[in-house]
Amino acid sequence: MAKIIDPYGAELPEDYAKVIKDFGLEEFKVDDFPEPNRLMRRGIVFAGRDLKIISKCIKEKKPFYVLSGIMPTNDKIHFGNKQVVENIRYFQDHGAKAYILVADLEAAAARGVSLEEGKRRALEFHIPAYLALGLDPKKTVFYFQSENKEVVHLAYGFAKKITLNEFRAIYGNADPGRIMSAVTQVGDILYPQLEERRPGIIPVGIDQDPHIRLTRDIVDRTKDKKFFRPSGLYHKYTPSLDGSLKMSKSKPESCIVLPEDVKSAQKKLKRALTGGRETVEIQKKMGGEPEKCMVFEMHKQHLIEDDKELQDIYKKCKSGTLLCGECKDIACSKMERFMQDFEKGIEKARKQVDKLNFVKFA
Amino acid sequence: MAKIIDPYGAELPEDYAKVIKDFGLEEFKVDDFPEPNRLMRRGIVFAGRDLKIISKCIKEKKPFYVLSGIMPTNDKIHFGNKQVVENIRYFQDHGAKAYILVADLEAAAARGVSLEEGKRRALEFHIPAYLALGLDPKKTVFYFQSENKEVVHLAYGFAKKITLNEFRAIYGNADPGRIMSAVTQVGDILYPQLEERRPGIIPVGIDQDPHIRLTRDIVDRTKDKKFFRPSGLYHKYTPSLDGSLKMSKSKPESCIVLPEDVKSAQKKLKRALTGGRETVEIQKKMGGEPEKCMVFEMHKQHLIEDDKELQDIYKKCKSGTLLCGECKDIACSKMERFMQDFEKGIEKARKQVDKLNFVKFA
Repeated sequence: MAKIIDPYGAELPEDYAKVIKDFGLEEFKVDDFPEPNRLMRRGIVFAGRDLKIISKCIKEKKPFYVLSGIMPTNDKIHFGNKQVVENIRYFQDHGAKAYILVADLEAAAARGVSLEEGKRRALEFHIPAYLALGLDPKKTVFYFQSENKEVVHLAYGFAKKITLNEFRAIYGNADPGRIMSAVTQVGDILYPQLEERRPGIIPVGIDQDPHIRLTRDIVDRTKDKKFFRPSGLYHKYTPSLDGSLKMSKSKPESCIVLPEDVKSAQKKLKRALTGGRETVEIQKKMGGEPEKCMVFEMHKQHLIEDDKELQDIYKKCKSGTLLCGECKDIACSKMERFMQDFEKGIEKARKQVDKLNFVKFA
Repeated sequence: MAKIIDPYGAELPEDYAKVIKDFGLEEFKVDDFPEPNRLMRRGIVFAGRDLKIISKCIKEKKPFYVLSGIMPTNDKIHFGNKQVVENIRYFQDHGAKAYILVADLEAAAARGVSLEEGKRRALEFHIPAYLALGLDPKKTVFYFQSENKEVVHLAYGFAKKITLNEFRAIYGNADPGRIMSAVTQVGDILYPQLEERRPGIIPVGIDQDPHIRLTRDIVDRTKDKKFFRPSGLYHKYTPSLDGSLKMSKSKPESCIVLPEDVKSAQKKLKRALTGGRETVEIQKKMGGEPEKCMVFEMHKQHLIEDDKELQDIYKKCKSGTLLCGECKDIACSKMERFMQDFEKGIEKARKQVDKLNFVKFA
């Protein structure tokens, strides 16, 4: 299956192509995965590590797992989390058992969040939000790091397998809290293999690759237990609405968080960098440049599920028949529906939290 | 109460006096502690931190605790461990609740010892050895770090309160396993205060002071929970039989481990550095120099409980009536009894291990 719509074409923009080269990643091949999701079809999922073993598990219906963590540092998430949940759901729909952990020990060690506060946030917001974004609870095991003795035991065992200098080379920062956080994350990533040794895939934003690399190195150095090296699946950033690489809370005017007041989100969308021309006349004549447009990027990454509909907007923009104002109105209306559905979904999911499958350790 | 026998006199040798000055310790004042034990009376316990609060607890019969850890890295201990147990017993006899932890997470993180192996060693050897050396099991709570969720939670919370540079300044080495080990130790030291907030004393060899300092710094920085800063009690090293500062397995010919084959231990004692003169004639005339004698040091630190008996040997040596051969024979005979009692004690204690008070966490 080809990427039917990708304004970037078959080629990756230079930055992401460079990432693949610099870090020795594999390019994501959409044809290797049956029924690819929107992010896969549109080149937003762009790279991975050891993807073949996962596509083989899917095709041969062999057991594998998908894992992700919730960092309960505040009561908002971002579009990157949404991408992760969508990819988890994809793998759940294709045979994976999912593990969602609350990184409460990490939040304590690296950010100073108390375990009580982390637990409260996860139960009241993060887990319901993940369910609202489409996580399948019937195929998901949840746990808190602080309640998972086996993860902690793995973390302590792995600490001996990496030096401070290696750690610094991977992460830059090597503060004690960060170190404990990182080895605990390695424990998380491999923990599902204690239950059953099998491949696993970790869908993350590309900035999280260091954890995957560290885990793979530690697997190679661990002789007493045999683990599969985890596979990684990397999605591009949702760009900042001002056109810079990554949407970030450090630039609140160009960042929409989840959930966000609809009016506020719409206001930001209306101020977004577009691919519009200097004047309406020129745009009608030459067409817009969706490749450079952050509104189109929101359509593509998050707001429009149907490929046909997205293609339509792309064509109309290029031909000069859809102008920026109207296109922004479409985005605003879709954003409104999304935020409303999301908040309703959270409310509904809150009532299900008690019934979820939490790991407890005696 | 005065130190009735201390060949070093009232003054500390230069090295230990320097330690007190350099690290801002308090000199141990034997008069502050009722019924001081042999190590206290003889100046082997020589320094501490915040000792007054502990002597006050003893005198006013207020609750306090004493804590020490077992590092299950192999199946031998050393005379330093014996000193620690003797000091724990002193505090148990004077109102303290004792906590003995098996540092199995630390052994994993810093030394690569598996939890299973650590547990086996602790149950088969270390805990029975501590009981054989006089630990009072009725006043002791035991736990494995790996089974103590609260200690682990404290450790992760404390990681945020120290920087890598501070860590390096305290420890020199800042490998990931060492860092995790150190913050876990801080968790251990403060854990008894979760049960009841009260002062605690940690008896250690002087080389372990960094842990006490780190813990005290972390207490000062911890605002959400109120802890007492732990008090420290420091004993001198048992010197190497060749006269150097510390008995160490790196010089096996001058180091007696516990337990050790009696013949082997006696052979080492016979080769020990003494305070004997060049010839028997000179020694008979001038007397020996027990201040420089490692055999006398073993008598003083470990082999002779009775002060009168030790004083007698000291006087006879100084007057030239007790020569080195005979004195070594006395030491060898006492060493034989000690090792036999120790091994018998271990065997007996093994049968009690099931009945000990182990903390388990659900």
